[in-house]
Amino acid sequence: MSRTHYCGEVNETAIGQRVSLKGWVQKRRDLGGLIFVDVRDRSGIVQVVFNPEISEQAVKVGEKLRNEFVVHIDGLVVGREPGQVNPAMKTGKVEVQVDHAAVINAAKNPPFLIEDETDVNEDLRLKYRYLDLRRPAMYETFKMRSDITKSIRRFLDEEGFLEVETPILTKSTPEGARDYLVPSRVHEGEFYALPQSPQLFKQMLMVSGFDKYYQIARCFRDEDLRADRQPEFTQIDMEMSFQSMEDIIEMNERMMVQMMESVKGIAIEPTFQRMSYTEAMDRYGSDKPDVRFGLELVNVSDLVKDSSFKVFSGAIENGGQVKLINVKGQAGNYSRKDIDALGEFAAVYGAKGLAWLKVEESGVKGPIAKFFEGEAAAALTQRAEAEAGDLLLFVADKKSIVADTLGALRMKFGKELGLIDNSVYKFLWITDWPLLEYDDKEGRYYAAHHPFTMPFEEDLDKLESEPENVRAQAYDLVLNGYELGGGSLRIYRRDIQEKMFKVLGFSEEEARAQFGFLMEAFEYGTPPHGGIAFGLDRLVMLLAGRTNLRDTIAFPKTASASDLLTEAPSPVSNAQLEELSLAVSVQNNPKDSQ
Amino acid sequence: MSRTHYCGEVNETAIGQRVSLKGWVQKRRDLGGLIFVDVRDRSGIVQVVFNPEISEQAVKVGEKLRNEFVVHIDGLVVGREPGQVNPAMKTGKVEVQVDHAAVINAAKNPPFLIEDETDVNEDLRLKYRYLDLRRPAMYETFKMRSDITKSIRRFLDEEGFLEVETPILTKSTPEGARDYLVPSRVHEGEFYALPQSPQLFKQMLMVSGFDKYYQIARCFRDEDLRADRQPEFTQIDMEMSFQSMEDIIEMNERMMVQMMESVKGIAIEPTFQRMSYTEAMDRYGSDKPDVRFGLELVNVSDLVKDSSFKVFSGAIENGGQVKLINVKGQAGNYSRKDIDALGEFAAVYGAKGLAWLKVEESGVKGPIAKFFEGEAAAALTQRAEAEAGDLLLFVADKKSIVADTLGALRMKFGKELGLIDNSVYKFLWITDWPLLEYDDKEGRYYAAHHPFTMPFEEDLDKLESEPENVRAQAYDLVLNGYELGGGSLRIYRRDIQEKMFKVLGFSEEEARAQFGFLMEAFEYGTPPHGGIAFGLDRLVMLLAGRTNLRDTIAFPKTASASDLLTEAPSPVSNAQLEELSLAVSVQNNPKDSQ
Repeated sequence: MSRTHYCGEVNETAIGQRVSLKGWVQKRRDLGGLIFVDVRDRSGIVQVVFNPEISEQAVKVGEKLRNEFVVHIDGLVVGREPGQVNPAMKTGKVEVQVDHAAVINAAKNPPFLIEDETDVNEDLRLKYRYLDLRRPAMYETFKMRSDITKSIRRFLDEEGFLEVETPILTKSTPEGARDYLVPSRVHEGEFYALPQSPQLFKQMLMVSGFDKYYQIARCFRDEDLRADRQPEFTQIDMEMSFQSMEDIIEMNERMMVQMMESVKGIAIEPTFQRMSYTEAMDRYGSDKPDVRFGLELVNVSDLVKDSSFKVFSGAIENGGQVKLINVKGQAGNYSRKDIDALGEFAAVYGAKGLAWLKVEESGVKGPIAKFFEGEAAAALTQRAEAEAGDLLLFVADKKSIVADTLGALRMKFGKELGLIDNSVYKFLWITDWPLLEYDDKEGRYYAAHHPFTMPFEEDLDKLESEPENVRAQAYDLVLNGYELGGGSLRIYRRDIQEKMFKVLGFSEEEARAQFGFLMEAFEYGTPPHGGIAFGLDRLVMLLAGRTNLRDTIAFPKTASASDLLTEAPSPVSNAQLEELSLAVSVQNNPKDSQ
Repeated sequence: MSRTHYCGEVNETAIGQRVSLKGWVQKRRDLGGLIFVDVRDRSGIVQVVFNPEISEQAVKVGEKLRNEFVVHIDGLVVGREPGQVNPAMKTGKVEVQVDHAAVINAAKNPPFLIEDETDVNEDLRLKYRYLDLRRPAMYETFKMRSDITKSIRRFLDEEGFLEVETPILTKSTPEGARDYLVPSRVHEGEFYALPQSPQLFKQMLMVSGFDKYYQIARCFRDEDLRADRQPEFTQIDMEMSFQSMEDIIEMNERMMVQMMESVKGIAIEPTFQRMSYTEAMDRYGSDKPDVRFGLELVNVSDLVKDSSFKVFSGAIENGGQVKLINVKGQAGNYSRKDIDALGEFAAVYGAKGLAWLKVEESGVKGPIAKFFEGEAAAALTQRAEAEAGDLLLFVADKKSIVADTLGALRMKFGKELGLIDNSVYKFLWITDWPLLEYDDKEGRYYAAHHPFTMPFEEDLDKLESEPENVRAQAYDLVLNGYELGGGSLRIYRRDIQEKMFKVLGFSEEEARAQFGFLMEAFEYGTPPHGGIAFGLDRLVMLLAGRTNLRDTIAFPKTASASDLLTEAPSPVSNAQLEELSLAVSVQNNPKDSQ
């Protein structure tokens, strides 16, 4: 008999029907001459009962069942006795009286139980990924991933976007992250690179007049991995011609609103908050602030610039800042030892120290209180909107360290003090980005987004004279403190693109060798264009409430970029290397397949 | 003013409206003080008229316009004078009286004209791919490609399939075509491989209970390229659990019917013709026959086995065959010289010669007619259903050469004699495949599909004793003589998979090193499963009526696997190679980026 129902669908509407199920044994209990088995498939679990009065054949099969056996069950759906109803289960009001059963495939005892809550070592889960993916929460995550792309595709299809696939075997471009390389067999000594994004190809499609392009695109970066990085990741990538930044932002807002409605059933505000990069850094110490809570950074540089506390006045003399956060009502909850621990946390972000004051009715208290008496204390507490019981934490340093440290402390308190409503999704656009960032170590400018970002028209004449003050027509979308994606209008004139490469330190020859085709394309009738790309893995992580990017990718890599299931990467045969005219220059030569 | 219409949408329903267009100059003509410009965007072309009586400003802009300039046009839609109507154009009843115009971006004279019919060298088209893609027929092809994937996604979404992305950085498996390798930086001397298909990962998803999976998946093969091969190609890839071959075939028929209806507006037969591999080879000399026309192969081995014509009887003695095709009514149109040319064509397929007879009222004529007189001739013409004026072409050789040669001749005549109705789409399932093929040169068996294909249950016991007689639970879908895709039920038991590897000549150790994780997975509760994969590029080629696979891929590679636009592959810096612990062992060392 063919399957009639998924297990999770067998509910009270099926009572009296004969059903045929195929699934896995989640659990077996023998009780009073009966055998109760929970059968699981991707839709959920249903309880089936083997009863010798119904079928001896079935009971014989039932006796053999162990966890993770694959079974075929035929039987009648009946209502459970009132006392047996399990309201926590979708199928908890019914059970299936088995009248025929068969083992489709047996199973060894798995190395870990298939259940949502697991404290199993992640390496073991990755080695047995096919078992790990049986956990219902994992399936739910991939279901949501599929729902998200479905919603976004439908939206973009309706908006007239064309899905176009761009190459995976492309050209290495040293600007940006490290490329994965692919040796060419035909062109000895030459290499393809896996794309870090489809950026140049989507711009080419705009030159082609395709007008509106999208792709759910695989991208690659050979970087040392953090918890939220993978060697291959997926972008929702789009580009459009003749559209203003406002057009692009407005359309993406509609896309996200529709997606949140269809995937999460949540109506979010149709127009997202916007904030300039400068304001975000000033108020939140972050270019991707979580605006679901306050605890904003307060600049007190002007108040302490002449202070006799030399840490503060000195920082300002050296061109830095002094800022604080006011941890409301927490003075009593943080001992000196606790605050010392916070200082260690701050040190990770480069802060040389964490100064603090506790606010009391009578003034401020703490090791640096003696520098801030009377009016000085009043001015600080007024600026901080502080009252008795508040804890003020100060960082005095150069601007970037103050922002990073207080931004991180703000997030830490936000989480630990329960200031964040996790049911809320706050989308936020960050705009008015700097076009370039100066790297002190390298002594050169880098593109803050990428070298193809269009400067503000009114800043164009500063591109060579004061590059640090040129703003970019760029926009990032932030969700709950995570960067979901970034986009920009693009340069579409050869002269501006040439200037940009020059500012980035490319010689004319280098620029031509790497990007000659792009600059030539700009001369054959290129429309103004712009776009955006979102990190799909991260979007899934946030909407599925996961904390680990690996849980959003079916077959992810470890922190050392290994696939523990298939054991990739792996040695290859000398014959394969010879065909590629390659030699490996390390001790542990690859085995020969012979 | 923002764009109000795409150019191709400005038709008589817009008469009297002011429109704003953005597009490219297709053509400019100056005529009687007026300037006529065809403006093109992805949707089509509309004629705009610059008239000094309407706008001096616009005329000044109009005078500067050259082919491929990007322009912004504002104006009033008016009906054309009856004599000026162009019925060949969607927009041929109207024109736009320009009242304001601007050049958005200028263009150099392009290296070739942007028009559908082009005899431009393909290398030039690929180097300037962004111009090549401006040709309306190219856009239409990619629009159709997007429509096809959209239709298929919607169908599979509704069928409960989950779209899951599988890795691009995977493990090298020597069985099959040659892998593209990706050196690992972290694991010195080790390599990832780009996937030839997501086969093993989709099987793992079935082990995980995902039940129904699909993906529009990029795949890679480092093979020497033919016209219909590309280093990277796209598969519509699916896999499902607990489904019979009939279930899978029936669902895919519904998918294709729905796709043909939505993409081509064509209602095809809901149930496709089926044919066994053996019958296809016998009747058409091909495992992917074009069944839109007859001209079938006729076996006359039994009639000629004792013939005094030693070429025929000798071939049969050596275990071969003699077959013919009857080219109806063509005896008079083929001279000896023409038939000699057919013989050269046949030689390409390995045939040592092409024997022939012309059928006349009185008997048969031709160099071998003397061997077939009286009853012998009558028997042949009867078997061939021949009548006066028919041309019989014979090949006598081993079975595979007979099939290849006559199969190719059949296709040649089918095209040249106009036997094929190009408006017809004939889908055909080929079933009952052999599981294995013996390679005489290598002296070993190869999997006819891949090593994971399930044998017929009733042939299982022949797997080791007579592997050549084991049939596979495999099915290919053929469209108009092209293999669209192939699928099978998969092995899901460790013992069968082990036997299969053994028959393929793997040692136990080799099987474990390459596929150990798969065989281990089979022990943890693997459901029966199967699937299919279709070549999307080829499907697009057939439905868009193209003859070149490169026209279906936005940025394809040449026959030497180069991207002429970006110039990939290319040398990389020594620093990049050092990071990968690699050395190139050829003369022309890569340049150092310093």
